[in-house]
Amino acid sequence: MYIDINKVTTISSLGGGPIGAGWAAHFLSKGFKVKSYIHDIEEKSSYETIIKTAWKSLKEMGLHEEASLKNLTISSSLEEVLHETHFVQESIPEILELKSNFYKILGELLPEQIIIASSTSGLTMTEIQKLCGTPERTVIGHPFNPPYLLPLVEIVGGKKTAASTIDWAFSFYQSAGKKPLAMKKEIPGFVATRLQEALWREALHMVAAGEATPEQIDTALINGPAPRMAVQGQCMAFHVACGSGGMATNLDQFGPALKLPWTRLKAPELTDSLRNQMVEGCETMSKGKGFEEMARQRDKSIVAILNAIKDSR
Amino acid sequence: MYIDINKVTTISSLGGGPIGAGWAAHFLSKGFKVKSYIHDIEEKSSYETIIKTAWKSLKEMGLHEEASLKNLTISSSLEEVLHETHFVQESIPEILELKSNFYKILGELLPEQIIIASSTSGLTMTEIQKLCGTPERTVIGHPFNPPYLLPLVEIVGGKKTAASTIDWAFSFYQSAGKKPLAMKKEIPGFVATRLQEALWREALHMVAAGEATPEQIDTALINGPAPRMAVQGQCMAFHVACGSGGMATNLDQFGPALKLPWTRLKAPELTDSLRNQMVEGCETMSKGKGFEEMARQRDKSIVAILNAIKDSR
Repeated sequence: MYIDINKVTTISSLGGGPIGAGWAAHFLSKGFKVKSYIHDIEEKSSYETIIKTAWKSLKEMGLHEEASLKNLTISSSLEEVLHETHFVQESIPEILELKSNFYKILGELLPEQIIIASSTSGLTMTEIQKLCGTPERTVIGHPFNPPYLLPLVEIVGGKKTAASTIDWAFSFYQSAGKKPLAMKKEIPGFVATRLQEALWREALHMVAAGEATPEQIDTALINGPAPRMAVQGQCMAFHVACGSGGMATNLDQFGPALKLPWTRLKAPELTDSLRNQMVEGCETMSKGKGFEEMARQRDKSIVAILNAIKDSR
Repeated sequence: MYIDINKVTTISSLGGGPIGAGWAAHFLSKGFKVKSYIHDIEEKSSYETIIKTAWKSLKEMGLHEEASLKNLTISSSLEEVLHETHFVQESIPEILELKSNFYKILGELLPEQIIIASSTSGLTMTEIQKLCGTPERTVIGHPFNPPYLLPLVEIVGGKKTAASTIDWAFSFYQSAGKKPLAMKKEIPGFVATRLQEALWREALHMVAAGEATPEQIDTALINGPAPRMAVQGQCMAFHVACGSGGMATNLDQFGPALKLPWTRLKAPELTDSLRNQMVEGCETMSKGKGFEEMARQRDKSIVAILNAIKDSR
């Protein structure tokens, strides 16, 4: 039904802000032709500046052999930008009325086999796709800022999104050098933003209560959990820290700590089902490796990170 | 009153677990003599294994010219370990009764000019120091696991801790290659653990509600916020992401998003005072740099991180 992923060579990036430009830079670096739509042609020079800045980093990451800034065209004609495109990444402003009307137009202009993905972070696809005549092929593909560097793309459909659209988007982003995550439910904030937002709100509470300054919060993160979290997510960090007992030990022994006032967020009830889901998830991620091996791998990566950014800290 | 920091050459690390051994490894790598106390001499070989594992990473980080594993002695005689020491880092089990009795003994055995720091993560110094005859020189110096790699040490005193003790500990940890943070208030979880715990509880809620799997949570963190957070804490990440308007734009424009259900943790009231503290904190951290410069620096560091750990991801 949808276009063969291996035949995607041309991508339309819609929206003139840092997210639209960031996506354009990413796809260019992977060797795609990119046709960018900006609402106002006056924004062209600031758009190009973002691309050029991103390009420095993308070169340091390693470009695809066919990657070139010459593969970019910028236009304020939507028809022109959508002509003969193979995939659409939409990053226009986060205003529901604007977006849902835009999807109505996209639905009319684009052949049905072309997937339309939205970068939205605050809206749901169920809301966005309401006026679209072909909502089955619309899906959220939410990047993390800066989108040309951070690999995460959170994928989630709306009520009318076809399951095959989600599969296609997952495979496509993966083939385009991203790390996709297909969500199980349509919830506000997706996965990464929810986790970050919990941390952020606790940070604001601490500043409001005179418990820490913004500088202390950043010092704590940069020098504490963050370098480890770039290597092991919070689940695996606790799994490996608890030795051979792993996540089971963490939850069985330290479960009562969830009741302690270590954050303003109350913990869920630690049911058997939750315990087992956490334990099984960590065992799957361990891929049969022992904790010593995983701890050593963690340490090597933390050392590599700290050494890599030593001069900038 | 306290010993001259430049004259500290011998450190006692008390406690036979991974934290005690991790501290010993850290101080050894910085060229100190370390006298380790383990409760049960049977634990000596597992203690040495932790040190040896840590040493591999510490070598990759770069050792002090006088650093040597020969500078380590391990004993189960507390008197022997405390004899002629210049600083005590205590990491015995997190049981209040055990710990407060231990501080009573430490108070009797150690000359008054020797600072005693506790690695505790779950207890307060006000509780720990209760039975100690010389509580003024006792303080918390809480590391982040693994303590031989992550630079953060959170410092906070109890009700009876002298201000000069906190100053001494701050300067000492700094001179010993750590990144200390002197807390403003004695609160459970300190700074880093509170932030991490908020994120962790949101993660557990999401798994419990069927919104995400443990694997998805770790995928989201590793490929999304974490590599950036190792470079910029959450405050500076938002400050730089909002362009020239910085944190002020973030709070003034996106403040209403704090009310959205993007996490189960309710946000504090965004008062003028909180807004201004956040803005001023970020301006201080910016040190006069423009956002383009900070964004480019962020990107360079993220590239360095992603390239450094490419093979292990």
